[in-house]
Amino acid sequence: MSQIEKNQPQVGIIMGSQSDLKVMSAAADILEQLGVPFELTIVSAHRTPHRMVEYAESARKKGLKVIIAGAGGAAHLPGMVAALTTLPVIGVPVKSSNSIDGWDSILSILQMPSGVPVATVALNGAANAGLLAAQILGTTSAVVADALEKHRTTQREKVMRSVEQLKRGDLDVD
Amino acid sequence: MSQIEKNQPQVGIIMGSQSDLKVMSAAADILEQLGVPFELTIVSAHRTPHRMVEYAESARKKGLKVIIAGAGGAAHLPGMVAALTTLPVIGVPVKSSNSIDGWDSILSILQMPSGVPVATVALNGAANAGLLAAQILGTTSAVVADALEKHRTTQREKVMRSVEQLKRGDLDVD
Amino acid sequence: MSQIEKNQPQVGIIMGSQSDLKVMSAAADILEQLGVPFELTIVSAHRTPHRMVEYAESARKKGLKVIIAGAGGAAHLPGMVAALTTLPVIGVPVKSSNSIDGWDSILSILQMPSGVPVATVALNGAANAGLLAAQILGTTSAVVADALEKHRTTQREKVMRSVEQLKRGDLDVD
Amino acid sequence: MSQIEKNQPQVGIIMGSQSDLKVMSAAADILEQLGVPFELTIVSAHRTPHRMVEYAESARKKGLKVIIAGAGGAAHLPGMVAALTTLPVIGVPVKSSNSIDGWDSILSILQMPSGVPVATVALNGAANAGLLAAQILGTTSAVVADALEKHRTTQREKVMRSVEQLKRGDLDVD
Amino acid sequence: MSQIEKNQPQVGIIMGSQSDLKVMSAAADILEQLGVPFELTIVSAHRTPHRMVEYAESARKKGLKVIIAGAGGAAHLPGMVAALTTLPVIGVPVKSSNSIDGWDSILSILQMPSGVPVATVALNGAANAGLLAAQILGTTSAVVADALEKHRTTQREKVMRSVEQLKRGDLDVD
Amino acid sequence: MSQIEKNQPQVGIIMGSQSDLKVMSAAADILEQLGVPFELTIVSAHRTPHRMVEYAESARKKGLKVIIAGAGGAAHLPGMVAALTTLPVIGVPVKSSNSIDGWDSILSILQMPSGVPVATVALNGAANAGLLAAQILGTTSAVVADALEKHRTTQREKVMRSVEQLKRGDLDVD
Amino acid sequence: MSQIEKNQPQVGIIMGSQSDLKVMSAAADILEQLGVPFELTIVSAHRTPHRMVEYAESARKKGLKVIIAGAGGAAHLPGMVAALTTLPVIGVPVKSSNSIDGWDSILSILQMPSGVPVATVALNGAANAGLLAAQILGTTSAVVADALEKHRTTQREKVMRSVEQLKRGDLDVD
Amino acid sequence: MSQIEKNQPQVGIIMGSQSDLKVMSAAADILEQLGVPFELTIVSAHRTPHRMVEYAESARKKGLKVIIAGAGGAAHLPGMVAALTTLPVIGVPVKSSNSIDGWDSILSILQMPSGVPVATVALNGAANAGLLAAQILGTTSAVVADALEKHRTTQREKVMRSVEQLKRGDLDVD
Repeated sequence: MSQIEKNQPQVGIIMGSQSDLKVMSAAADILEQLGVPFELTIVSAHRTPHRMVEYAESARKKGLKVIIAGAGGAAHLPGMVAALTTLPVIGVPVKSSNSIDGWDSILSILQMPSGVPVATVALNGAANAGLLAAQILGTTSAVVADALEKHRTTQREKVMRSVEQLKRGDLDVD
Repeated sequence: MSQIEKNQPQVGIIMGSQSDLKVMSAAADILEQLGVPFELTIVSAHRTPHRMVEYAESARKKGLKVIIAGAGGAAHLPGMVAALTTLPVIGVPVKSSNSIDGWDSILSILQMPSGVPVATVALNGAANAGLLAAQILGTTSAVVADALEKHRTTQREKVMRSVEQLKRGDLDVD
Repeated sequence: MSQIEKNQPQVGIIMGSQSDLKVMSAAADILEQLGVPFELTIVSAHRTPHRMVEYAESARKKGLKVIIAGAGGAAHLPGMVAALTTLPVIGVPVKSSNSIDGWDSILSILQMPSGVPVATVALNGAANAGLLAAQILGTTSAVVADALEKHRTTQREKVMRSVEQLKRGDLDVD
Repeated sequence: MSQIEKNQPQVGIIMGSQSDLKVMSAAADILEQLGVPFELTIVSAHRTPHRMVEYAESARKKGLKVIIAGAGGAAHLPGMVAALTTLPVIGVPVKSSNSIDGWDSILSILQMPSGVPVATVALNGAANAGLLAAQILGTTSAVVADALEKHRTTQREKVMRSVEQLKRGDLDVD
Repeated sequence: MSQIEKNQPQVGIIMGSQSDLKVMSAAADILEQLGVPFELTIVSAHRTPHRMVEYAESARKKGLKVIIAGAGGAAHLPGMVAALTTLPVIGVPVKSSNSIDGWDSILSILQMPSGVPVATVALNGAANAGLLAAQILGTTSAVVADALEKHRTTQREKVMRSVEQLKRGDLDVD
Repeated sequence: MSQIEKNQPQVGIIMGSQSDLKVMSAAADILEQLGVPFELTIVSAHRTPHRMVEYAESARKKGLKVIIAGAGGAAHLPGMVAALTTLPVIGVPVKSSNSIDGWDSILSILQMPSGVPVATVALNGAANAGLLAAQILGTTSAVVADALEKHRTTQREKVMRSVEQLKRGDLDVD
Repeated sequence: MSQIEKNQPQVGIIMGSQSDLKVMSAAADILEQLGVPFELTIVSAHRTPHRMVEYAESARKKGLKVIIAGAGGAAHLPGMVAALTTLPVIGVPVKSSNSIDGWDSILSILQMPSGVPVATVALNGAANAGLLAAQILGTTSAVVADALEKHRTTQREKVMRSVEQLKRGDLDVD
Repeated sequence: MSQIEKNQPQVGIIMGSQSDLKVMSAAADILEQLGVPFELTIVSAHRTPHRMVEYAESARKKGLKVIIAGAGGAAHLPGMVAALTTLPVIGVPVKSSNSIDGWDSILSILQMPSGVPVATVALNGAANAGLLAAQILGTTSAVVADALEKHRTTQREKVMRSVEQLKRGDLDVD
């Protein structure tokens, strides 16, 4: 990575609760795959609000470029972090137990008021959050941009392999 | 009011934006009517997060007993205030412009995670928020409890007057 | 508890049906944990309407300070009880079988008309209903207020333990 | 009307609030048109609960055969009346101001638990509530059954007149 | 049953598909319990439209007083039958596989245009459809009215037994 | 039009009510523009069910190739017509007054059971219904296919004109 | 099949992902049953956009008459293919994992802007998509029209067999 | 702006239709205010698909760093552009006429499949899209980062002015 220090995390992945880790680890996986250094921790808007303020306000100073925040239900973490930094914040609506089909986390993250944007991805879309973070870094890092192009090619080739398997009758429906 | 100091606000009414005042003033009106001292101000979770932290954390010390918080869209104010105090917090979902029929503010306020409750009232239900605050005070103040009983009687009498008007044919449909 | 008689229930927990007990027992658990005396019984708005009227109208006289009412589907219990007492009533929308994803109980409890508030908590949010009841008592009882502060500290510490586990790589994703 | 006493109301039309009259008067209009005697009054589940109990419990004794109950928001009137009588109760969801597009009143009326049915009609469907009440009476009254058949014929003829107008080019689009 | 012939079905229960039988048999069960003679068959609006027309148009002549029609998805059976008879038609929205949480069947049955009512009950509410049919018959049959009162008493007693069990600690939460 | 008789309507446009004409006339307009002969009339599933059966069953014989059916609320017309013919039926959900934001007509038309498809277009999408009907005819008529290509070109050119206007600063925002 | 070449696929079935095959194979099954030649492959709007453009733009030239496109989530395949050909495109909303109850795919496919229609069928309604494609071919092919009539007869007879089984008590509820 | 050429647009704002300009111009306004060079044009996914492919594929080469794409209804533009570039794409759901309360555009933009993220903002949230684009540029441009901090300060000060006005009684509710 050209202008990115090797050991300096570029992306901070945070989540409201330990139970979100199952969903949110996909963001870490994709960043690892793309060679983007990241950190990952738990920051609860409602149970550790001061930790959240501290995390958000120190993020830029400690070298983070993007924050990925995942939360379920009345998901205030992404929006509150976005209120406390001017770094881009990517919000991942997590479909938690007792969620109303995910609508609660989607709307709590998406419908931010004018002035404080959150870049919202699909329900449980942590992998896409990781990709989006890389795309943001890729606007100035040719290395990350190249990794993203390769990832796209891999995706396309995977589809084409399915096309071939289907043609040969090798694809099982179930 | 027996155990309530005359000039000490018992209820803090806050709202995310000046545009919420039109809805939220109904909470003030009902408290005034019931003789409950209150204060009213603007506290934005997203544009003045530190003011919000300060407001919530000092609320009990300065003598408030209940906080009423109204907000629209991705309405984080009630839940974040609830995370920063153990006073009861009443949340009023406000149907703002660009709201998705109010669903966003309702779900952002209602669907709080276990550990941090918000007492949510109906969409734009600021009057009921005021009544609920008074009911909370009325659990120990006989004066407030009496005012609430009288308010109920007035409501009932108003219905009975409609009943009579309708019987006499004095009620206009339009 | 300072101004609370030892054996006098302060909170009445009621539910529309025996099948709601699985969800509603969380309200009892938290109150027990916080040392708040409560009573718990079944009161059906639709199958025992007179019992409901009697329960609601005698609640204040017998010393209750808050009522927690849980119900599913067309959930009329919380709102009807609220119409029959001026005590604060906390409504718990229960996601019953044949519920339409919980929307029916949420809207039947939340959307009360002006004059009769119900303090609505999240879908299946009985634990938060218990906490909210304690917060209401905590507005005048220092003992309950202290118990609530301790509960908050415990929650925060639990998050911090997860943070530490995650840092050490001790957190299992699945 | 053969087996129906001339001056004895057969259908009781009630509504939660004076503001519902604009919608609910359509039920009265259709019953008048069909020659079915009815009474109409205001009964609020939340502001006059005892009046509601009294109304529902005395309905059969005073000769009513069907009750039509309209209400908006958290609409408890139809279901509570149904809990207090075994007469058929027809529920009309009214789209009140501050309603969430009518979903609240629809679900509060429709989703009754097993044991206490409410015959729910469309949002603001008071005219259909009147027709349904007449259909119930028409199961044993030939006079009402005939009136209903004539009403159907009129409806059909009205459609056929539109068909003819359209054919002649006499129908204005706007 | 006073004015009801012993072997003459009073209620016709129909459903759109064999797969609805699991839900719809509850209507038959309750009618059997209440001693109301009924018939039950399959009539598909979309696959046997002429059978549907014939069924609906001959219903009154063959002695039926009420029709209960259950269907899932784009549920046209109740509304189309209602268009072809002036008997009261009770619609049961069935939550079929591939249903969108039951919304499709609810709205297809409930939202009938002015002139053609369907008495809609809750999602999968076949038992209530049976009770409502009996309530309609009970407007003129004292025998059915009595059976309904007894059914209510049984329901109330069942709740009171749960109350007692809970008091004794005999109620298992799970 | 090559294999299409000049005066023989190819497309039948029907709608449930005169009030749907305002929306549905767009289907006629586009067919006229494309030179496809059509007929247009009112057929109500609920108020003229026999007319509906007759229309649907005679459609193929009288030379129609496609039926466009528009309806609002519990919109049964498209699905019932589709049950009575094997011609392709295009359904237009109409957002009528008292509709629940159009969801009722969309779901009543879209969610047809296996065996009886309806080709559903967008809410109030009558123009697209007309285009789809033409596309169906265009599978075998080169004349219609050409007309459709020209229509596409016109659309594209219209966008490009906006692009130019915007570039020149000639586009008014309001 | 009269004007249809034996080995020339008439219908192209495409889907966004291999995981859609389980749902989409029902379209192939019904076309096979009706004797309509088809081809089936995977075309991803998002992972193989150029393949999509190429597929859509060459479809008419290579002899396809109808395209069936199935996709889940933000389902852009049907609409984008419809933008690139004037052949009729049938869209099948697939309820994928992480879908929000299917609403996302339904609305992404159904709500096409004026000018570019997609013939949308029910959620997971691939069998109906196959039937609709056949109905389109059947507007000019008597052989396909006959096959469709026979399919309808078979459906009707299947219902009638259930009717008989139910009458004999041979139908199991579970 | 340090590493940004003065006249080189950094952000491309595109929208599906001229009618989206009213909403989307807010993105241009905020970028202008922050001093970020941008370009703005109309690109329709459905009416100019080749223009869309060309725009997306040439974006990085011509120096764009972020694309903002707004569209209503079945909004395919943001997702399709995201499929054709690895630049970050910000999607703005526009509430167009005939939209189903905006749900269609929100879900069509938000619910992208794994591999192709779109950074979705609130309904009609074009101003936030502009801010988010600036935040992305601000990860490496100190000038933009400073402009964003100043914008935040201005927002905060505006709230504080409302607080003062309210205190002085200078705020009009209506």
